[in-house]
Amino acid sequence: MLSKAVIKHLRALQLKKFRDESGLFLVEGPKLVKELLLSPGWKVDQLYALPDWHPPSDVPIPEIIPVTEKELEQISIHPQPNRVIAVAAIPPVIRLPAEVPSSGLYLLLDQIQDPGNLGTIIRTADWFGLAGLFCSQDTVDCFNPKVVQSSMGSLFRIPVHYGSLAGVLVKNTQGPQLPVYATQLDGSDIFQTSLSESGLIILGNESRGIHPLLKPFVNRSLLIPSKSKDSAGAESLNVATAAGIVCAEFFRRFLKTG
Amino acid sequence: MLSKAVIKHLRALQLKKFRDESGLFLVEGPKLVKELLLSPGWKVDQLYALPDWHPPSDVPIPEIIPVTEKELEQISIHPQPNRVIAVAAIPPVIRLPAEVPSSGLYLLLDQIQDPGNLGTIIRTADWFGLAGLFCSQDTVDCFNPKVVQSSMGSLFRIPVHYGSLAGVLVKNTQGPQLPVYATQLDGSDIFQTSLSESGLIILGNESRGIHPLLKPFVNRSLLIPSKSKDSAGAESLNVATAAGIVCAEFFRRFLKTG
Repeated sequence: MLSKAVIKHLRALQLKKFRDESGLFLVEGPKLVKELLLSPGWKVDQLYALPDWHPPSDVPIPEIIPVTEKELEQISIHPQPNRVIAVAAIPPVIRLPAEVPSSGLYLLLDQIQDPGNLGTIIRTADWFGLAGLFCSQDTVDCFNPKVVQSSMGSLFRIPVHYGSLAGVLVKNTQGPQLPVYATQLDGSDIFQTSLSESGLIILGNESRGIHPLLKPFVNRSLLIPSKSKDSAGAESLNVATAAGIVCAEFFRRFLKTG
Repeated sequence: MLSKAVIKHLRALQLKKFRDESGLFLVEGPKLVKELLLSPGWKVDQLYALPDWHPPSDVPIPEIIPVTEKELEQISIHPQPNRVIAVAAIPPVIRLPAEVPSSGLYLLLDQIQDPGNLGTIIRTADWFGLAGLFCSQDTVDCFNPKVVQSSMGSLFRIPVHYGSLAGVLVKNTQGPQLPVYATQLDGSDIFQTSLSESGLIILGNESRGIHPLLKPFVNRSLLIPSKSKDSAGAESLNVATAAGIVCAEFFRRFLKTG
């Protein structure tokens, strides 16, 4: 039986403050936990599981702590918890100042607020084989349980860094000088403009767009065209949808199936 | 001051059962309410607004009922409600059996569960100028407050029908015979296969894909290619992201800016 203190500790990991303090985060459900266990470089501390959950074979398994359905419910973010919850270590590299890549295609996420959007963008970037993501410090934490959930395991496969986007962009101008793209309403039609195989693509906040301080670094502004040019149609796309369309277009031109 | 009965009635509209019974739904926030008031064919019954909210000019405005912040909080789905909530009539046409179109590009949504996904798909379809959406009866209700919110007003502009998708597909085989597309893992690379200007595009449930009963109607199976062909990468894309990429690709080839 889990003590109240243990349950309290586990529940606290739903909050960024306690994740930062402990360096731990939660992963829930057989599918995600399996992906976590199979992903190199991720350290799993404990598994809290119903008796009917069986770990995948052929991977080192940490301590499995048997729990009841009721106990799982008390730890879970879901009203109907999903058989197993892992407590895993946040890898130290994710918090380090980002190095500036000399090649590859990267997303730079400026103040993305919605956990579902961030998780979906991570999943999309993994699908299309992007090299990684840089997130502004005020982007929602990628170890938020809803981000972990909606990334569907892609969080364990694609590098995600948090830090100053301006810092990354300054270093880029001094170093590799990768082209810097951003989706903006005054940009060139993405389907008709030239793109490059490597680059940094800035995606802005859901309602405010990209930060004014980042705009001077943009050398190629991209527009996802819409049917209606007047004010009669949708004003914008969801940021995760926009990320999907942009990644798909770079993929179509350069990335190709591996 | 709002009576308890009125508050109870308004809160009940967050549930499908009561929306179906009353034929009413809620729209929240100045931006969405403005879009609603400016959209032809939508009937607004009442507006519950803080004193500092002002309706847009040049449109007929229904009764405005002044409320306090506390009252708005009691009606709202949000912890921090957004100044105005409209009660609007669900248009009768949305529930009618769908007619089968003879041209145009339509999305057929099979059992989409997540309100955010549905709202995002409606917004995307509007952005790219699709002709409309057909939703299976077990797709989440488009008047769910979270769908209304995430559609960002597109719900008021693009036709959305609920009914039997199999019924639509049977009538299509007997009538206009539009090509039927579906995104499936065994499909042809969407970027390299031929597409048509008109068609019905089936998008399946978030975890189960499209219903086996619908598969025989598909004559063109489409795959959004991924970087990794083996099992090392993401297994799938979020359904709203997939919808965005598919709509963008049809747009790129045929729909064009109007």
